[in-house]
Amino acid sequence: MASQFGTLFRISTWGESHGGAVGVVVDGCPPGLPISVDEIQTELDRRRPGQSRIVTQRKEADRVEILSGVFDGVTTGTPISMLVWNQDARSGDYDEMRTKYRPSHADFTYDAKYGVRDWRGGGRSSARETVGRVAAGALAQALLRRDFGVEIVAWVESVQSIRAEVDALSVTRSEVDQNMVRCPIPEVATEMQALIESVRKQGDSVGGVVGAVARGVPAGWGEPVFDRLEADLAKALLSLPACKGFESGSGFAGTLLRGSEHNDPFRASEGEVFTPTNSSGGIQGGISNGMPILVRAAFKPVATILAEQQTVTTSRENTTLKGRGRHDPCVLPRAVPMVEAMMALVLVDHALRQRALGIGRRGSI
Amino acid sequence: MASQFGTLFRISTWGESHGGAVGVVVDGCPPGLPISVDEIQTELDRRRPGQSRIVTQRKEADRVEILSGVFDGVTTGTPISMLVWNQDARSGDYDEMRTKYRPSHADFTYDAKYGVRDWRGGGRSSARETVGRVAAGALAQALLRRDFGVEIVAWVESVQSIRAEVDALSVTRSEVDQNMVRCPIPEVATEMQALIESVRKQGDSVGGVVGAVARGVPAGWGEPVFDRLEADLAKALLSLPACKGFESGSGFAGTLLRGSEHNDPFRASEGEVFTPTNSSGGIQGGISNGMPILVRAAFKPVATILAEQQTVTTSRENTTLKGRGRHDPCVLPRAVPMVEAMMALVLVDHALRQRALGIGRRGSI
Amino acid sequence: MASQFGTLFRISTWGESHGGAVGVVVDGCPPGLPISVDEIQTELDRRRPGQSRIVTQRKEADRVEILSGVFDGVTTGTPISMLVWNQDARSGDYDEMRTKYRPSHADFTYDAKYGVRDWRGGGRSSARETVGRVAAGALAQALLRRDFGVEIVAWVESVQSIRAEVDALSVTRSEVDQNMVRCPIPEVATEMQALIESVRKQGDSVGGVVGAVARGVPAGWGEPVFDRLEADLAKALLSLPACKGFESGSGFAGTLLRGSEHNDPFRASEGEVFTPTNSSGGIQGGISNGMPILVRAAFKPVATILAEQQTVTTSRENTTLKGRGRHDPCVLPRAVPMVEAMMALVLVDHALRQRALGIGRRGSI
Amino acid sequence: MASQFGTLFRISTWGESHGGAVGVVVDGCPPGLPISVDEIQTELDRRRPGQSRIVTQRKEADRVEILSGVFDGVTTGTPISMLVWNQDARSGDYDEMRTKYRPSHADFTYDAKYGVRDWRGGGRSSARETVGRVAAGALAQALLRRDFGVEIVAWVESVQSIRAEVDALSVTRSEVDQNMVRCPIPEVATEMQALIESVRKQGDSVGGVVGAVARGVPAGWGEPVFDRLEADLAKALLSLPACKGFESGSGFAGTLLRGSEHNDPFRASEGEVFTPTNSSGGIQGGISNGMPILVRAAFKPVATILAEQQTVTTSRENTTLKGRGRHDPCVLPRAVPMVEAMMALVLVDHALRQRALGIGRRGSI
Repeated sequence: MASQFGTLFRISTWGESHGGAVGVVVDGCPPGLPISVDEIQTELDRRRPGQSRIVTQRKEADRVEILSGVFDGVTTGTPISMLVWNQDARSGDYDEMRTKYRPSHADFTYDAKYGVRDWRGGGRSSARETVGRVAAGALAQALLRRDFGVEIVAWVESVQSIRAEVDALSVTRSEVDQNMVRCPIPEVATEMQALIESVRKQGDSVGGVVGAVARGVPAGWGEPVFDRLEADLAKALLSLPACKGFESGSGFAGTLLRGSEHNDPFRASEGEVFTPTNSSGGIQGGISNGMPILVRAAFKPVATILAEQQTVTTSRENTTLKGRGRHDPCVLPRAVPMVEAMMALVLVDHALRQRALGIGRRGSI
Repeated sequence: MASQFGTLFRISTWGESHGGAVGVVVDGCPPGLPISVDEIQTELDRRRPGQSRIVTQRKEADRVEILSGVFDGVTTGTPISMLVWNQDARSGDYDEMRTKYRPSHADFTYDAKYGVRDWRGGGRSSARETVGRVAAGALAQALLRRDFGVEIVAWVESVQSIRAEVDALSVTRSEVDQNMVRCPIPEVATEMQALIESVRKQGDSVGGVVGAVARGVPAGWGEPVFDRLEADLAKALLSLPACKGFESGSGFAGTLLRGSEHNDPFRASEGEVFTPTNSSGGIQGGISNGMPILVRAAFKPVATILAEQQTVTTSRENTTLKGRGRHDPCVLPRAVPMVEAMMALVLVDHALRQRALGIGRRGSI
Repeated sequence: MASQFGTLFRISTWGESHGGAVGVVVDGCPPGLPISVDEIQTELDRRRPGQSRIVTQRKEADRVEILSGVFDGVTTGTPISMLVWNQDARSGDYDEMRTKYRPSHADFTYDAKYGVRDWRGGGRSSARETVGRVAAGALAQALLRRDFGVEIVAWVESVQSIRAEVDALSVTRSEVDQNMVRCPIPEVATEMQALIESVRKQGDSVGGVVGAVARGVPAGWGEPVFDRLEADLAKALLSLPACKGFESGSGFAGTLLRGSEHNDPFRASEGEVFTPTNSSGGIQGGISNGMPILVRAAFKPVATILAEQQTVTTSRENTTLKGRGRHDPCVLPRAVPMVEAMMALVLVDHALRQRALGIGRRGSI
Repeated sequence: MASQFGTLFRISTWGESHGGAVGVVVDGCPPGLPISVDEIQTELDRRRPGQSRIVTQRKEADRVEILSGVFDGVTTGTPISMLVWNQDARSGDYDEMRTKYRPSHADFTYDAKYGVRDWRGGGRSSARETVGRVAAGALAQALLRRDFGVEIVAWVESVQSIRAEVDALSVTRSEVDQNMVRCPIPEVATEMQALIESVRKQGDSVGGVVGAVARGVPAGWGEPVFDRLEADLAKALLSLPACKGFESGSGFAGTLLRGSEHNDPFRASEGEVFTPTNSSGGIQGGISNGMPILVRAAFKPVATILAEQQTVTTSRENTTLKGRGRHDPCVLPRAVPMVEAMMALVLVDHALRQRALGIGRRGSI
């Protein structure tokens, strides 16, 4: 369904940018997982608007409330409902959107699909919807850590043409969070930040690439055929607002290699199997091989810019529209926790599916 | 589920490379669609091994049988079961694979996941599984053509570093099929073919990129949030063997642009809305906007090469393995009908989902 | 999933008896449906505790809030989140349940399943969970009325051995709601009420049967094989707390007839097809035939009684437990709106599934 | 989907009465389960037409072929495709059905739903579709026995008004199979057989009730809310052709008791919890409590009778139709293996879902 994700660990998000609240229901979280509001809040704070001067200045505390499914500090196995009230919703900023479609936004397509549309702030198409994903992803990450020893780290790898070379084997979340750009290479982060600030001043926007790794995933997660791990990860990341591309392992660059260069030889050491190279990005035949899982996601420049653009009215007249309101000049810094959340949701689901098979971890790599 | 795809138009594929047969069950195909074995066979022939000298020489006629769901030449609305018998299955070629994992294949990961494995020819992980997808995709394409006027064309855009500039607005399937590479630019196809033949002689392999377009999709297909059209297309293509990357519209290249360069302005002409540019690739906010839908998929070089490679045994000993058997030096020519099939399966599913809403086509672009 | 229901019109309920709130997210409700809080509140009021002296006296206003998916008085096609805050939750009444399992309740089985349990008032197993179903069912009924002309009426057919003969073709909801028992035959309702009051005084409980009809369902809703209309209705009703039996059409009584007595002959009149008898209960081969859909559901006597009963502790010691707290002596009056809601959720889902096929209503009966 | 059943252990059946073949694809069967064609054939033989003189005399050997998913005698975890070719399909018997709807069959409703219909022998609505269910159910039962120690037995409890009192705790499948009626009480079976033969001679039909038990199910299988064990069992049994009613535990008779009579007290003995009575039928709050699971299903008299009946033509003219062809005068004997198969499919699915939670069996009863 449109607003549901997952097979066994399934989430349903709801809420519009300028409605009463946004939230999520998580169905299928195993019982007995210790969880606190603080753990979830920490992730929401990394996604929050207004967290730095290079993101949108909408003022939202984004305090999460857990309304069900947690008792005496642990999950009970029943649905976990989490909610964040909308506070700083200035619908007035959007009056013009009632009758004019913003270019490269979802205004026109929602109207085409539904014949009706909550035009305030993009309604359901707003990135505000990801509050529920990040909250659910915090739960998923807690479970992955405790039950499976899996750790996920994402980072900003490029902003427009400024690129960082990040070591996926060693990068930590604290390195990522040490600056407002969320690029773990400080000198590159400084450059990126300067670019974003300059672009903001021009009323323009930039895109970039988020890289991410999942470390500690045992061999055997994923499925053959349709629910391949990389297929599910691709869907998960492409479902994020503004995402237009996905790579697993060698990705597009891998198409420039020959098989003899691309293949990852297997080696064994003390009963453990590994591959000295990792073109496969930790996934072979759709199933994890025990090596770090490596993915990259492309995010287009934010559609809202403070310039006059050509567009049409809801009655099909040519017109122009000048962007207003508070917006992100670059979605990347806030996309980092979203990417981590989506990866966690995919991995935890496959972890539970694998557990259902009743197979121990036969292989390791 | 692992081997099922789709929500309303749902397929279940089954079968192993060297088992008795491979096939598919399609549940949810609307009734009354005229369909012939020939129409399905045509697509299977484009996927068939042995179709040219640059693909695997395994001899399979791949004659499809329709066992249910079609009566008097039309679909009845009940499950359509289609089957192709395996004929030229030389298991002997694979004896060594019983105890040695082929690098960058799924042998190791299947063992890790299941603790048991059909080692003959890759079993379920073989591209032979895609027979079922292509057969189902032929049905989906017939329905898209008849009920919705949608046409899908894919082509080989690059092989290693040889790249073709293809006009997605005009390219036809007959242009694509005019050469064995399935690149619609004849002179580039010739170069590609030479490269593939040279690589084949060296016992090596190459990868590349498939481009694809869906023309005629009305505005309004797709969903907000998780089942975005591009998210579902990404999953569909990443679920194909050897696929490691996906782009929609501007993709990774779009991250190098500013918002002011990337945005697609809307224009109206005689009540029809369109965008003079198409960075969005026909999808905005996860929903089609009426412009051509543009995607690209990266396929890594085929893992099987006829060289000696380092690997390990099932008992975790270091060893080497030399590829044998009949293989594709380049998966791209045969990937073209697979990509078209998967796109069709995604689009037809969203077409039915949109029809369920009971909304007329309000917008057009 | 455990707490989700439906295919295209899908609901996710959440919340515990004594948690912060209970609610539901509806994903897949078509856009453009006019809906008001009042319409939903009306149904919740029919389910509400404290509505009469023969139901539990827990004081809950059960005021519903719509948090998303409705804009300017109509649905937008995006998820509709609805919430009711818990108010009169007296957890103290349940202290003993922390360590003792109530007979024929879900305390023991939840512990067995999850290893952890919200023991306050039955937690998730409480009938309070049905708030979300009834709210979602109100939406479903509004859609069924507007788009399809379908009307659903349920009633109390028997309480213990007191039975009413109700004419399913003509019974109205106002006849049902004219007394606190919700039996449309006034003199039988009076008897039932006397029985319930007498049983309440004895601290005991009684069960009974709810009958229900859906009128106006066109021929062609439902599916062959697994998602037969009666199969989905059976699941829907059996998923209600305390429901232990289901019948469609002639049900168990039909097993006493011969085929020649049971079959419903077809007749045509002015191009309309009908059956003078309706043993089939409006469903043949899992698909509606245009006649009224007739079902019955058996509800066991409420498990909570104010008598001392044998039970065991969480540490597997024999003990006794005396029921406390506020409970329904008979669940039937409040089950009526629940049955209507569940029937509506099944029917609206099949209506949308049928619409997806793109077939007009070919037959009528 | 219409022809799919299950969440983790999911089956897709396909095939028409008079098409080329009928079959099933099982997706999600765990790997490593030893399975032989014989084990599956044994169950199919119990379902087979022509097995005795009181069932239809259609001659079908119903020899099953396993086409995928089993290698070296064990399941591999990949989809298991099983097929039975149709042999004795006399379409000529059904010519009249092309233009006349058989009363209480699915001819009219299929036409209404699909606008097209395979009129030969009922097409998809024929009980022949259950071949796939019984084959898949054999796999499910093998897994339930091996991994979970669960045993399922069903029997004919009544034929019209002839009723057997069967001890669900001790009844065995060999007792059930000792006569052609499949009633484990020999003297009652003799009476039932005489009735069925007499009815057959009159060209009429009878219905009855199948009882069933699952022994050895541990406490903790099932789900709260929608996927309650009894809800899923109800759907499973109501999805069988001719089933019109379902009871769990005390069922409809339980509505005649008071709570004080109906409740099952808990007792503990040597750390094991049990209930001396079992009104709950082994399920409380939708979850198994470790006691035997008890269900009953009502099957209406077979619709096909060899008498002239009133009906209408496809062009809405009144007419008459006289039954022809080979039919079951009583579906009950062949329904027994179908009921067992469907129960097994529900239970194995919940077993895997519970295993996914990673909870040990905490309780027992």
